Amino acid sequence: MALMTKEQYIESLRKLDIKVYMFGELVENPVDHPIIKPSINSVAMTYELAHDPEYQDLMTAESNLTGERVNRFCHLHQNTEDLVKKVKMQRLLGQKTASCFQRCVGMDAFNAVFSTTYDVDKKHGTKYHDNFKEYLMLAQEKDWTVDGAMTDPKGNRSLSPSKQADPDLYLHVVERREDGVVVRGAKAHQTGSINSHEHLIMPTIAMGPDDKDYAISFAVPTDAKGIFMVYGRQSCDTRKLEEDADMDVGNKEFGGQEALVVFDNVFVPNNRIFLNGETEFAGVLVERFAGYHRQSYGGCKVGVGDVLIGAAAVAAEYNGVPKASHIKDKLIEMMHLNETLYACGIACSAEGYPTESGNYQIDMLLANVCKQNVTRLPYEITRLAEDIAGGLMVTMPSEKDFKHPVIGPICEKYFKGREDVPTMDRMRILRLIENLTLGTAAVGYRTESMHGAGSPQAQRIMIWRQSNLEHKKQLAKNIARVG
Amino acid sequence: MALMTKEQYIESLRKLDIKVYMFGELVENPVDHPIIKPSINSVAMTYELAHDPEYQDLMTAESNLTGERVNRFCHLHQNTEDLVKKVKMQRLLGQKTASCFQRCVGMDAFNAVFSTTYDVDKKHGTKYHDNFKEYLMLAQEKDWTVDGAMTDPKGNRSLSPSKQADPDLYLHVVERREDGVVVRGAKAHQTGSINSHEHLIMPTIAMGPDDKDYAISFAVPTDAKGIFMVYGRQSCDTRKLEEDADMDVGNKEFGGQEALVVFDNVFVPNNRIFLNGETEFAGVLVERFAGYHRQSYGGCKVGVGDVLIGAAAVAAEYNGVPKASHIKDKLIEMMHLNETLYACGIACSAEGYPTESGNYQIDMLLANVCKQNVTRLPYEITRLAEDIAGGLMVTMPSEKDFKHPVIGPICEKYFKGREDVPTMDRMRILRLIENLTLGTAAVGYRTESMHGAGSPQAQRIMIWRQSNLEHKKQLAKNIARVG
Amino acid sequence: MALMTKEQYIESLRKLDIKVYMFGELVENPVDHPIIKPSINSVAMTYELAHDPEYQDLMTAESNLTGERVNRFCHLHQNTEDLVKKVKMQRLLGQKTASCFQRCVGMDAFNAVFSTTYDVDKKHGTKYHDNFKEYLMLAQEKDWTVDGAMTDPKGNRSLSPSKQADPDLYLHVVERREDGVVVRGAKAHQTGSINSHEHLIMPTIAMGPDDKDYAISFAVPTDAKGIFMVYGRQSCDTRKLEEDADMDVGNKEFGGQEALVVFDNVFVPNNRIFLNGETEFAGVLVERFAGYHRQSYGGCKVGVGDVLIGAAAVAAEYNGVPKASHIKDKLIEMMHLNETLYACGIACSAEGYPTESGNYQIDMLLANVCKQNVTRLPYEITRLAEDIAGGLMVTMPSEKDFKHPVIGPICEKYFKGREDVPTMDRMRILRLIENLTLGTAAVGYRTESMHGAGSPQAQRIMIWRQSNLEHKKQLAKNIARVG
Amino acid sequence: MALMTKEQYIESLRKLDIKVYMFGELVENPVDHPIIKPSINSVAMTYELAHDPEYQDLMTAESNLTGERVNRFCHLHQNTEDLVKKVKMQRLLGQKTASCFQRCVGMDAFNAVFSTTYDVDKKHGTKYHDNFKEYLMLAQEKDWTVDGAMTDPKGNRSLSPSKQADPDLYLHVVERREDGVVVRGAKAHQTGSINSHEHLIMPTIAMGPDDKDYAISFAVPTDAKGIFMVYGRQSCDTRKLEEDADMDVGNKEFGGQEALVVFDNVFVPNNRIFLNGETEFAGVLVERFAGYHRQSYGGCKVGVGDVLIGAAAVAAEYNGVPKASHIKDKLIEMMHLNETLYACGIACSAEGYPTESGNYQIDMLLANVCKQNVTRLPYEITRLAEDIAGGLMVTMPSEKDFKHPVIGPICEKYFKGREDVPTMDRMRILRLIENLTLGTAAVGYRTESMHGAGSPQAQRIMIWRQSNLEHKKQLAKNIARVG
Repeated sequence: MALMTKEQYIESLRKLDIKVYMFGELVENPVDHPIIKPSINSVAMTYELAHDPEYQDLMTAESNLTGERVNRFCHLHQNTEDLVKKVKMQRLLGQKTASCFQRCVGMDAFNAVFSTTYDVDKKHGTKYHDNFKEYLMLAQEKDWTVDGAMTDPKGNRSLSPSKQADPDLYLHVVERREDGVVVRGAKAHQTGSINSHEHLIMPTIAMGPDDKDYAISFAVPTDAKGIFMVYGRQSCDTRKLEEDADMDVGNKEFGGQEALVVFDNVFVPNNRIFLNGETEFAGVLVERFAGYHRQSYGGCKVGVGDVLIGAAAVAAEYNGVPKASHIKDKLIEMMHLNETLYACGIACSAEGYPTESGNYQIDMLLANVCKQNVTRLPYEITRLAEDIAGGLMVTMPSEKDFKHPVIGPICEKYFKGREDVPTMDRMRILRLIENLTLGTAAVGYRTESMHGAGSPQAQRIMIWRQSNLEHKKQLAKNIARVG
Repeated sequence: MALMTKEQYIESLRKLDIKVYMFGELVENPVDHPIIKPSINSVAMTYELAHDPEYQDLMTAESNLTGERVNRFCHLHQNTEDLVKKVKMQRLLGQKTASCFQRCVGMDAFNAVFSTTYDVDKKHGTKYHDNFKEYLMLAQEKDWTVDGAMTDPKGNRSLSPSKQADPDLYLHVVERREDGVVVRGAKAHQTGSINSHEHLIMPTIAMGPDDKDYAISFAVPTDAKGIFMVYGRQSCDTRKLEEDADMDVGNKEFGGQEALVVFDNVFVPNNRIFLNGETEFAGVLVERFAGYHRQSYGGCKVGVGDVLIGAAAVAAEYNGVPKASHIKDKLIEMMHLNETLYACGIACSAEGYPTESGNYQIDMLLANVCKQNVTRLPYEITRLAEDIAGGLMVTMPSEKDFKHPVIGPICEKYFKGREDVPTMDRMRILRLIENLTLGTAAVGYRTESMHGAGSPQAQRIMIWRQSNLEHKKQLAKNIARVG
Repeated sequence: MALMTKEQYIESLRKLDIKVYMFGELVENPVDHPIIKPSINSVAMTYELAHDPEYQDLMTAESNLTGERVNRFCHLHQNTEDLVKKVKMQRLLGQKTASCFQRCVGMDAFNAVFSTTYDVDKKHGTKYHDNFKEYLMLAQEKDWTVDGAMTDPKGNRSLSPSKQADPDLYLHVVERREDGVVVRGAKAHQTGSINSHEHLIMPTIAMGPDDKDYAISFAVPTDAKGIFMVYGRQSCDTRKLEEDADMDVGNKEFGGQEALVVFDNVFVPNNRIFLNGETEFAGVLVERFAGYHRQSYGGCKVGVGDVLIGAAAVAAEYNGVPKASHIKDKLIEMMHLNETLYACGIACSAEGYPTESGNYQIDMLLANVCKQNVTRLPYEITRLAEDIAGGLMVTMPSEKDFKHPVIGPICEKYFKGREDVPTMDRMRILRLIENLTLGTAAVGYRTESMHGAGSPQAQRIMIWRQSNLEHKKQLAKNIARVG
Repeated sequence: MALMTKEQYIESLRKLDIKVYMFGELVENPVDHPIIKPSINSVAMTYELAHDPEYQDLMTAESNLTGERVNRFCHLHQNTEDLVKKVKMQRLLGQKTASCFQRCVGMDAFNAVFSTTYDVDKKHGTKYHDNFKEYLMLAQEKDWTVDGAMTDPKGNRSLSPSKQADPDLYLHVVERREDGVVVRGAKAHQTGSINSHEHLIMPTIAMGPDDKDYAISFAVPTDAKGIFMVYGRQSCDTRKLEEDADMDVGNKEFGGQEALVVFDNVFVPNNRIFLNGETEFAGVLVERFAGYHRQSYGGCKVGVGDVLIGAAAVAAEYNGVPKASHIKDKLIEMMHLNETLYACGIACSAEGYPTESGNYQIDMLLANVCKQNVTRLPYEITRLAEDIAGGLMVTMPSEKDFKHPVIGPICEKYFKGREDVPTMDRMRILRLIENLTLGTAAVGYRTESMHGAGSPQAQRIMIWRQSNLEHKKQLAKNIARVG
């Protein structure tokens, strides 16, 4: 069936028996839970737009494995054009959802595991690549959303996985059977895990010979026996539970989601194993996945930035000051910064190169530069948006006050901006800015920009490694006629 | 009685018949409302510390009007030492509450109205200064918290008060009686209004001859007939309503508060009027109040910054990476930025000068420079705190999950950082950082830093006016031997 | 002959009868003048590398007009790959010369005039495009360096060309003859004009119907009758005249050059005219040239940045502190910023698109974002380089002191850094950093980064125009469910 | 005589037999050397203004040692008012000279040595404090300019003074005699050394027991036997040697100066020794001197900044665009940044405290914060000045061209800005900006801002030490209810 509709996607989630805890309770019906629902809607957008002729070129691609048209999120990048389209697709989805749409981790994992399994097999004569191709064809056919899961809890960061006091602080093999392995541990900060059909697991750091049991990559269904999640709290999460708070939530329809995914003795059959003890490839896999994912942020966050810039411009208009030169200048600055991120996303894609396995890898240096900028510029965009919005954003009453028979008209009267703009429209735009700068979406636009795909220092280490400083030193010596 | 205890202060609020709406309902008992309570605790700290011998020199002063020892928040600055102590007191309170403690607006209004009424009387032969002195002596004796209220809703910002479509968009006199005046309108973004015994009203912009009815300054009790408030929503406000969320709120005890204060035909007796139609002094009053208040931010936000820096340092320790050079460098940067704000607060105080009325005014240029920095540096401090904290800050489960019999131990296990630190301690510190960067306190530390005491552009206009650019041009011409 | 050697290029300049004034004198032999020579060497590098097999792919291209292999500086971009290679070529040349190599203005003018003449002819039935193609084929065959000259002196910036008190403040037609036109005026800030065989003139702003005589584009030989230049002073220019100052100059071999080019009644034959009164195309031509040239800075300045970063790293090594974590962190930051510029250069190229005339135009928004970053990031890279270099960079003695029999050994002794590094090597590297941050090359790396290809505000205006803010506003309204 | 006139000061320098090498030659008459002269003029301004009644309060003070009115540069700070006046005096002199006026190092050394000798004597029963008081009284009476000299060449920075391969890389005692000691070594980066009557030497780092011979502080006349200097090259230094270059130099009258001062077996009599082997006080002395000197930069660089801001404003006016909103905004930003530095200078002074010896020390944390900002903000002010100035600053011809009979009028014509402003005036202002951003004064305004009084990392280490992070951590724990 290849391309599910939005409705089919949501229906398909209902069929899974997902175990997720929130606020100390097992959630009965995750798909319709008001806190979870918006994050499902965000993922659903990746299905919906794939059917829109306007976006088909961005949202879908011809599978190199089957020749079928598949959702780009399930696609192996075949050239730099694919890499560029990935970024554009992400910007588009950021624009449409103003939040994290969660499905990128799967796409980035597919591409990283594909080329790495090829390399492992080449060296070790294993069959991981075939396993993975078979799996990916299924994912393409089923149009799955897959959680590409990497980050372990890590415990004491100065110790390697096998040296931790609690062996489960990195996910690992606890039993080896003829038909597969049993694993235990957890993956933290998992974006969209509850909204995914499958989990594709990868190790989270480079490993040494002692960490054999930790060098494991595999795929399992999200509702596999032994898997359960604990939902992460977000700023302002419970506003979604309130009645008469459509305005207050800022972004009623869309949202993101993070969870702890626990693997409590989960069985993995042999044909779903993609790495199993070849420790020297753990680091390779991490680096490739991180590279793709750092590229991703040059698309998705730019799309969210577009919405925030637009919201600030509308707020200025509603405030009655759209032509003040300092407002215009701040909007220009926001756009400049946002497009700088985009430029980095495009550049690392355009400079991509083929792996031995045939898919395309991004330029590693520029992808890290991209992500490093993402840890900074959205914060300044946010600051400027708060500047333009004005203090009302954080002092305005609730929607319930606006609907109150006595107080409502008072609020209407005193929070009126430009005369031809309904007060509630003004409030809605301010609430959207609040959502993006302080609320649930700020988790995605700020903190995730900081730490997703690796914290700032991780990128700096990669920039150091990838920059060929020796060459620059030689250039300087040549000019200075030294040595 | 001069210095109330913390308990007396809270009790005194109970005696007021304050009308405040929240979530579409009239709040029955504001003093014990879980959302309002933390903001009362913050104000209460200004009473509590005044009794602490360690802080007496900062927290109290000898009244120049009565010779009594009064809370510094009710004091008229008598010299630059007083101005400097004000800033230090504010830093102290920021450190103790990690939030806005709301009482500064009164102190800043006292000092601005004092010198301005003196000038008005001198020109117009009015009696405002005597009125005000009498009022202030009462405030000192009663140890009142007073809301110095300035900001009107403003409506269409391109029109003066008297030209607005709705005349109430700036607070104004609607009836002039022998014994006083009746006013109508509202003050927006009022910090701590519900926690104040009194409201001291000031106009919000410079005015022209047509705006006579709008050039009004006066004081009334917070529960005067015709006054009511609408409580402003803050990010994460309803967490305070949740059970078993002590950890989740981040800062259980303290908070800030903003409200719309509506004056629905409120009577003001003659002896509480401090300006009434002398339009040319509206701007003077605004400028002086804004000047003091821009100084204030060089104290209070620095104190909050101290807590955030401390929290980041503790988080790094609990994460097990306190000695990483990049962590140390980020902490240094945070401290450097925070102390830069403090330096500005101190400098504009140390360079203060006496007004004709006898109290001291801050250096206007440096106070504006101070506030301008406050619209920027806390954002960078915030960004660095989020960097150090790590992604867990926004993906960790609720306290209820941690207390759940099944899920709790799982959460304990997987969110463990350094072995000797209880997991819950680590979570508490991260929730505090969340509170300051995204949650209720972020409203005070970020958005209020931006817009409180005037938005960034307001300071830039003042910097332009106060900088004596002509002198600088002449200096350049002298050196360049031009003209 | 298509590809001149470096030597042929220098020889070809000798054959021109160029009139250039410097320090109040007509320069007798510009080619061998010690101040001019380094700038010729920089241009010569564009010839030298074209013969180097290693760089042939970057430095040369197959002409779409003749099928011959030509220097890329004379090439019309045929696809986005060409645009990307342009940027890479520029980075390479920046690395090899650590200065401005001047030839880009011609390349950018070729591409802008090519597509614009096509459009003019299409509308007006003129023959400019044929004129230009004929001219360009000659340029390719002769392997000319051409000064693409745009910036007029401009006089009073609030008046259009035809309204200036002095009509010559914009270059214009003063006589129309059957065989051509006579022009008068000047072009200011001309980079490499003295080192160019030809001048390709373009108007400098959008024009109205009254400015007909100013809407003129044409080409003439650099030594055409009536043309002369006045050489611009650069910081530290006369060090190049000093004896025994090889070290002191920092970059002995290479440099940049700027001049005022005066057109004192210069005749232009009809077949060299590319625009003549079609005022509505003046703005188009400016925008296209500026677009290409703003892209250029994402290459050349990055190459110079590479040298500066390398020099800073070597300086740290020679100072004996290469492993200090703060030094490493600063080098990472420099590389991060430099690669951000490169990413912008690559991105606006990769996102290029075909013009109707067949050559490729860059993405206008991203090219302006690129240049806007160039007006900032090199300044920070410079600051960090000065930080790493240490104060010695500006307090060290002259080479003559180092060569003095008595003082020399003293200098050697006291300016010794790491023991195994010759003191003079350390000095040379510091002088190179001085050259790039304060000296002759700082003119190119700092001030030209600021103002070349348009001052920062010019880019901001373009970013405003190109960003489609209306679309962003609609996105925000959709999410906020407004309007 | 206490207060010399400017003329007396210059005359007094003539009487000294100073040995200084420049460009490989012993300078015959340093006082009249065109490269040195401007730096003498800068120092002379400290004498001239002391006689100006307008500035007497800032420029002079009553000596606590003698009761005489002395130049403030020879004064021991008696209270925080003195500390504040010091900063204001420095800003004034920066405004008057637009360069480094060099005399601060002496003042800062006086105050540091005064309190340190007191502490040494108290512990060791030595007589350094009396020695120093006697010396200082003489300095006050003679109105000396004194070079407070600290920085040694340092050689291999990972080794302590006594472990260097060459023992002279730190200045040290080579012979101990009954009547005094003989020292050898050098002080690098010495500001104003040639213009000083005396040298007051201090050690440059904290020392251990093995470094006894290096823990030496003393004073000697600048022309003491065995002392000679090597003059440091500055960007554009030789323009001062050119004829007809009054305009080109930018700042004809004033400048700064740096030199290497070599001590080739210099005898120091006992009564001029202020530390001699008490190694544990070397660090104390360094820290105190550095503290004062980091305060100084919050005054002098602000004054220079005033001139640069003024010059940029004049340039905008002469360019005809003074009212463009982006120009105004950039000027505001420059003033904001400049006043931020000033605020830091004032704050660390106002927060000063008495030492046991009776003079006043600045607040160490805030002084380091001050200097840290000085390593950044002038760079941004510079960048903005270059933005406003326009490219002409680096492409304009020489003064000789402007004076040439043929070319001169051409230059006048084409470099005309606003019609009512003489072209030469416009050029002069641009050359002043060049001087401050790229030329001789940039050495003082940029590189010295970076490295003078300690490089950025030195301040960061002090900020770390002085910030009481443990207290901040406890504040956070209190709020988070942890531990």
